[in-house]
Amino acid sequence: MANFSSVLLENAVNEFAKLPGIGKKTALRLVLHLLRQETQEVEQFGNTLIRLKNEVHYCRVCHNLSDTETCEICASPQRDTTIICVVENIKDVMAIENTHQYKGLYHVLGGVISPMDGIGPSDLEIQSLIERVEKENTQEIIMALPTTMEGDTTAFYISKRLKHYTLKISTIARGVAIGNDLEYTDEVTLGRSIVNRIAFEG
Amino acid sequence: MANFSSVLLENAVNEFAKLPGIGKKTALRLVLHLLRQETQEVEQFGNTLIRLKNEVHYCRVCHNLSDTETCEICASPQRDTTIICVVENIKDVMAIENTHQYKGLYHVLGGVISPMDGIGPSDLEIQSLIERVEKENTQEIIMALPTTMEGDTTAFYISKRLKHYTLKISTIARGVAIGNDLEYTDEVTLGRSIVNRIAFEG
Repeated sequence: MANFSSVLLENAVNEFAKLPGIGKKTALRLVLHLLRQETQEVEQFGNTLIRLKNEVHYCRVCHNLSDTETCEICASPQRDTTIICVVENIKDVMAIENTHQYKGLYHVLGGVISPMDGIGPSDLEIQSLIERVEKENTQEIIMALPTTMEGDTTAFYISKRLKHYTLKISTIARGVAIGNDLEYTDEVTLGRSIVNRIAFEG
Repeated sequence: MANFSSVLLENAVNEFAKLPGIGKKTALRLVLHLLRQETQEVEQFGNTLIRLKNEVHYCRVCHNLSDTETCEICASPQRDTTIICVVENIKDVMAIENTHQYKGLYHVLGGVISPMDGIGPSDLEIQSLIERVEKENTQEIIMALPTTMEGDTTAFYISKRLKHYTLKISTIARGVAIGNDLEYTDEVTLGRSIVNRIAFEG
């Protein structure tokens, strides 16, 4: 994969190959695909990326990605402002929004506490969450963090920081996924789903 | 995968998702990766693609990608100008160059004859190959086309177009790949490798 006949081509392949999960061969395939498109299409591709990076905002309230200073969810009069769902990143916001089951607000931490990766509480949007609870009329915090040591640590840290406020703190239910067979569910999940059993709605 | 909180984000994801083999989820992952990079890095990515499309040349002799009107291979005094290797696309040029076994010139057809896809001889750089043979001191044409019906058809068509010229026309050897077990080699390849056996160099 040496021997590019064009430096322009080589540069473009190298740029794509910097992306996660894209090797040199895939990068070359993508670049050759773009070369077959209209100039206008390729310019739109390049300019869309440049515009995104330069113009996108992180919502000053919840830190979700937004086109405006305050995101649509935080600005919406239809949302229940008494509940804040704490998530790791904006993909989690999208996943929860797709369920259409939640009408409260969000708070995007931008990661979870991970001493191994050098990520401490001050690297995350935790202080801003505390300040929101102080200023807003928050009554419930839902932790929707990953079920990992780091996620659990983060949830524990936040709950400690919030213990002086009169708040309900909940976490999303963990259990056997709908449609999954019990025999293929891992023991920890299955164990928790028994401990945290809920009333049967017959 | 609806519910983008930002139109800028959605546009960028859609641009990536237009690329072959990249779905919406991967596109989102790539865009979020770019958002974490420096503005300068993202601008370089976008501008590199735009520059490539606007500034790259197709060599006017062999139609390989090039930064200049005539590519480095065609312009090099070190190459053997009596041999032209006919390939489908520029990836094939790169693959053969990587072997360091070939010192002749190339001719990139830009595809192979495929009536099913509506690609006929006039859609490919076949006429320009004939003109090269007329003008240049070509003594041998090596067909390095895919071993498919389309590749074989194209090689046959070109050889017919070239039959009035005093030329040696060859094709790259097909056979059992080095390191491959015979039992796992397909019958056609194995059959050809017996028919086209070569003198043993002990």
